[in-house]
Amino acid sequence: MEPNLRIEQALTRAIDLATAPPGPPRLSSAIRHAVFAGGARVRPKLCLSVALACGDDRPALSDAMATALELLHCASLVHDDLPCFDNADLRRGLPSVHKAYGEQLAVLAGDALIVTAFQVLGIVATSAPTRSGRMLATLATAGGARTGIAAGQAWECEEQVSLPDYHRAKTGALFAAATVGGASAAGADAEPWRALGEKLGEAYQVGDDLRDAICTEQAIGKPVGQDPLNGRPSAVAELGIEGSRRRLDRLVQDALRSIPPCPGRDLLRAGILQEMHRVLPCKLSMVAA
Amino acid sequence: MEPNLRIEQALTRAIDLATAPPGPPRLSSAIRHAVFAGGARVRPKLCLSVALACGDDRPALSDAMATALELLHCASLVHDDLPCFDNADLRRGLPSVHKAYGEQLAVLAGDALIVTAFQVLGIVATSAPTRSGRMLATLATAGGARTGIAAGQAWECEEQVSLPDYHRAKTGALFAAATVGGASAAGADAEPWRALGEKLGEAYQVGDDLRDAICTEQAIGKPVGQDPLNGRPSAVAELGIEGSRRRLDRLVQDALRSIPPCPGRDLLRAGILQEMHRVLPCKLSMVAA
Repeated sequence: MEPNLRIEQALTRAIDLATAPPGPPRLSSAIRHAVFAGGARVRPKLCLSVALACGDDRPALSDAMATALELLHCASLVHDDLPCFDNADLRRGLPSVHKAYGEQLAVLAGDALIVTAFQVLGIVATSAPTRSGRMLATLATAGGARTGIAAGQAWECEEQVSLPDYHRAKTGALFAAATVGGASAAGADAEPWRALGEKLGEAYQVGDDLRDAICTEQAIGKPVGQDPLNGRPSAVAELGIEGSRRRLDRLVQDALRSIPPCPGRDLLRAGILQEMHRVLPCKLSMVAA
Repeated sequence: MEPNLRIEQALTRAIDLATAPPGPPRLSSAIRHAVFAGGARVRPKLCLSVALACGDDRPALSDAMATALELLHCASLVHDDLPCFDNADLRRGLPSVHKAYGEQLAVLAGDALIVTAFQVLGIVATSAPTRSGRMLATLATAGGARTGIAAGQAWECEEQVSLPDYHRAKTGALFAAATVGGASAAGADAEPWRALGEKLGEAYQVGDDLRDAICTEQAIGKPVGQDPLNGRPSAVAELGIEGSRRRLDRLVQDALRSIPPCPGRDLLRAGILQEMHRVLPCKLSMVAA
């Protein structure tokens, strides 16, 4: 089955399970809004691509890992948009969850999505204990307070921030979990896959900082110019636009070089390049060629 | 080892792991504030009591379940205290997390505690796949958007609320997870333990509503009179003080009668009665005798 379709079907199964009656209807609706609002599914696609490159002999496991990562990502977006953080009215061109459903349901939808992410891994855990143990640890690290997305967002509340540490946690954590988790789901030796995820995560974050600096709200479906407005550390603030473009280029090249030997190496490489072109601002897509 | 000590040691191990360097120091501090601020540990004590009543042959599993439940509970308290919900300045006589660390770190500390709860179960998952699968499902249900604490809090955002559904999700879910999870951790048939948790959860919630109505802020370490102020459904609003006292009494009696046959039945019964006396408002403690 085509990866995009696999991902949407797996997400639908997970959210149907998490929001079936007798749950409170407005919370269910807020959760669906958070998950099914046109996300690019970058992380689950990367996870499935790595699993496929490693043989993908247990698709139920790679589907679960991909789904869990996307749910954790959606949770972080909902919470990041809250008034106390970015106070963003728009996300992917639609009202953010707190704008559409209020702040209370946005907090709770994010919480429920974190729970659902782990629930999805819990469902497959008994059938493949060793792989699932690694997948659970990978997801927990990616979400956590040390090097995960909670840490990444929290670095914005510290007086001293190192930009690479901040980016590694805020964005790199879920990308590293996508590659390590995808390899784990396929029963491969997972640690050699970490560098690919880390490099792609950094590249994606630099790309995001560039989009914030040079794109229009219409083009990317969310407010731009937010990084300087929120005093947030950004590659553009540190390296300028040209410096950030060079950094992005180097990160993508490093990422591709880091791919471990595996049956589907060439296909994975092509898929990653295609994906990076798709998600980067159009003016910049030549740099990663 | 004495249960209180087991719980504190297990919580300390979990939080040390979740907040070790290189995590952002203020987030780590906010997480510690949320977990180590004098909680009564009602849910993990209930979990260990049930595990002990069922033989507790794998204490690492019951410790993990008890810890995970308390972390999920702490997360819900941090988020419930936020300005968009209760806007509570105090919790257990200390500043609430958002008062002490700001709203951003309160959101993130709650998120990280949910992640850590599942991480703790993930650590023991490979060593006992069948029991851990049940424990993971139990935790996910207890935290979730259908019948878990996210649902419970979200019922406050609906126009139509049934008080039993609301209480069952908001408080009963974690109590049911404590009994079902404790029994699962000990390898017992877990479903027959659900009624005990559900009844105790309802009793505890009715007791909480009564505390809000008749106690002083000094006596319980948090603002009182919040339920009518927040237009929140409450047993006192529906049944009055006398009606709530009678309901509480009946729930505790039903709970004790529901205990399934097990080696440690009498000790468990005595422990539950002692615990209910300890946590209920002093003026009411006679009712549960």
